[in-house]
Amino acid sequence: MQQAMNIGLLGFGTVGSGVLQIIQEHQDKLYHQIGCGVTVKKILVNDLEKERPGSYTQEQLTTDADEILKDPEIDAVVEVMGGMEEARLYIRQALENGKNVVTANKDVMAEYGSELLDVADANSCDLYYEASVAGGIPILRTLVEGLASDRITKMMGIVNGTTNYILTKMTKEGRLYEEVLKEAQALGYAEADPSSDVDGLDAARKISILGTLGFSMNLDLSDVKMTGIRNVTSEDIQYAKQLGYTMKLIGLASRDNDEVEVSVEPALVPSDHPLASVDDEFNAVYVYGEAVGETMFYGPGAGKLPTATAIVSDLVNVLKNKRLGVSGNSLVLPQFDKKLKADENIDTKYLMRIHAKDLPGTFASLTALFSQHGVSLEKILQVPLNEGKLAEIIVVTHSVSRKTYDDVLEKLNEADEIVEVKSSYRVEGEIK
Amino acid sequence: MQQAMNIGLLGFGTVGSGVLQIIQEHQDKLYHQIGCGVTVKKILVNDLEKERPGSYTQEQLTTDADEILKDPEIDAVVEVMGGMEEARLYIRQALENGKNVVTANKDVMAEYGSELLDVADANSCDLYYEASVAGGIPILRTLVEGLASDRITKMMGIVNGTTNYILTKMTKEGRLYEEVLKEAQALGYAEADPSSDVDGLDAARKISILGTLGFSMNLDLSDVKMTGIRNVTSEDIQYAKQLGYTMKLIGLASRDNDEVEVSVEPALVPSDHPLASVDDEFNAVYVYGEAVGETMFYGPGAGKLPTATAIVSDLVNVLKNKRLGVSGNSLVLPQFDKKLKADENIDTKYLMRIHAKDLPGTFASLTALFSQHGVSLEKILQVPLNEGKLAEIIVVTHSVSRKTYDDVLEKLNEADEIVEVKSSYRVEGEIK
Repeated sequence: MQQAMNIGLLGFGTVGSGVLQIIQEHQDKLYHQIGCGVTVKKILVNDLEKERPGSYTQEQLTTDADEILKDPEIDAVVEVMGGMEEARLYIRQALENGKNVVTANKDVMAEYGSELLDVADANSCDLYYEASVAGGIPILRTLVEGLASDRITKMMGIVNGTTNYILTKMTKEGRLYEEVLKEAQALGYAEADPSSDVDGLDAARKISILGTLGFSMNLDLSDVKMTGIRNVTSEDIQYAKQLGYTMKLIGLASRDNDEVEVSVEPALVPSDHPLASVDDEFNAVYVYGEAVGETMFYGPGAGKLPTATAIVSDLVNVLKNKRLGVSGNSLVLPQFDKKLKADENIDTKYLMRIHAKDLPGTFASLTALFSQHGVSLEKILQVPLNEGKLAEIIVVTHSVSRKTYDDVLEKLNEADEIVEVKSSYRVEGEIK
Repeated sequence: MQQAMNIGLLGFGTVGSGVLQIIQEHQDKLYHQIGCGVTVKKILVNDLEKERPGSYTQEQLTTDADEILKDPEIDAVVEVMGGMEEARLYIRQALENGKNVVTANKDVMAEYGSELLDVADANSCDLYYEASVAGGIPILRTLVEGLASDRITKMMGIVNGTTNYILTKMTKEGRLYEEVLKEAQALGYAEADPSSDVDGLDAARKISILGTLGFSMNLDLSDVKMTGIRNVTSEDIQYAKQLGYTMKLIGLASRDNDEVEVSVEPALVPSDHPLASVDDEFNAVYVYGEAVGETMFYGPGAGKLPTATAIVSDLVNVLKNKRLGVSGNSLVLPQFDKKLKADENIDTKYLMRIHAKDLPGTFASLTALFSQHGVSLEKILQVPLNEGKLAEIIVVTHSVSRKTYDDVLEKLNEADEIVEVKSSYRVEGEIK
């Protein structure tokens, strides 16, 4: 019987204990796939005394990372400690010592993915990171393998469970942002400081990882234009709903020819779009490929066992590769140079909510202003406000360049008839 | 520069020409992944003279399968000829001659998958068949790799585009089955003889392949209980809609402990279930894993390029494996003995539509009959019919065994007050 392979765990929090549990409970399945068992030899912790769930011995624990990173018997290292610099350093050292690495760390992969993949390549090691984006959805694998011979032109992801939970409640129950956020915090769906979720940073990291892989182009976090959901109002959501749209925080990566755009922003999708029915804390990634057309992958974005499942799947591949002597061969390094689309070349539709004086001629001068800039309107909804003194006007434009849109916005803000442009959102996809 | 690898194509119809096109257009991408180019050396056709789309030379064509199956220079064979016995024979011969095989043939894989996988295993060859189920969705790969360390307990698939198109139109436009079927035939979505689609055979083949892989148990087509959509009426669909359900032809594979059930039948899912919004000719596979929870994979189920994309993705893996010298290592052979669930152990909810005499006491005796059998009702809807002479009663039961349900059905058909049990459907999933 083939001897078991050894792994080291960096971190023993929720996800780490999930990984340990799955490895312990599925030895037969692992054996069947890899051809040998898997032993968790060492686990890096901060505190040796702390009680943790799961079955482990005191000898498995260490506070010294070198006991994992430098142990020649350890075949693969699983990084589930989170954080940034220390995790980056340990992953690097593990690779330099010839160890294959599986990580769930989206922060590190979004910031230092390209550096670390190069180190992996130089050392003929694997570096797998499926769990870093949408834990329960095997989307990276799908991009690399399933759609390998296609040309992906667009990805739209609901990749942050907290904001999707908040927007779902606001949409379905007509509730206010602040109120739902507090509820989400009480339920543990949102952190005490929710900024990395609600300002879009978490989603931006994930979409930069997806874009890098899907377009084979090294996209950084700084390439992602980022807008969060703090300013989304229930009114915006309800008016959009009336016009057939659903509000979602969308991580978008798209390309025309060789130029790409990457963004995270609250955007509107048609209510019969597959993304529109992704509710609560669920995640989904919609992928458009030239050959395959529309596909979508749906599942839990986080959670102990979904994330641990993704990690163990990666681990199976990594250990198989090592047994076969092909570690590092399946690394996917960016193949093309990055070309970002200039603002003026980003064409999209917008929904705008405008408060105007409710006087004869207001509407005509508003539409004249749009048409002077060559912007045609797809939908218009007008509602009296404030006992008829104001009109609330919601328009959906046809596709315009961001430059034109900015010009129109400026003119609108100068126009006498317009009291205020209350809000505006990108609109993705056509209503059938 | 590494010499290109050679493949042989068996069949040159729509999908075959898609495969040729993708291979020709993506040489750089293939090179990047496999480490060498890919040449389509020979294509088996019936008729050398027929004009076909795409760029190929007359020398590439042959009517003699042996020129592919026995050519030592051919590394992999792609079977896209369809049909049953001949395809089975060629796949078998290719494997026996040490060639790796990629097939899109669900008929052959559903009937002879276990036999052919054994032949592949005995000859250390790969046999990949992603395109045989839901062409544009990399679901087999996901079951094998992405959810490798999970225990899948349930799969529900909308895996037949024709029937989903028909049911979508019936649901959204309130139209009749026959009418929509004719339209689908005119549009080329349904065949002149639609039976393999509308009677559920096509879906049954796919769910038997999914079940075999997901449960690692050799499930045959004959294990699948099959009901088609011929008897689904618009009334059934509309009443179900009123109660919050959407009608879909669901391929179901589920297991409790070690016992499995495999079926294809028109069934009701809650209208906010991810499967409910899979419309028109799209396919989706919903997978429940103990660790990962709910996931769903959505995309086109058929079509030239989606299917060809799946085939070329398989081909990339197969050729990589061959270059690495690990062909056959990733074959997944069923690991467990098959245990089918007895009817009396299949617990599920039902929606029943009953016509009863509209007399005092009818309703009471109906509910008494259910409760005598220990069946409790979750929902009841009663509508007068025929100027009040009849009552249309729709009930949704709580979960009952199929045995109990059959007993109730028998008693209902005997009861004086009941004119007719018009229809009944399985209900899957809870309305939130």
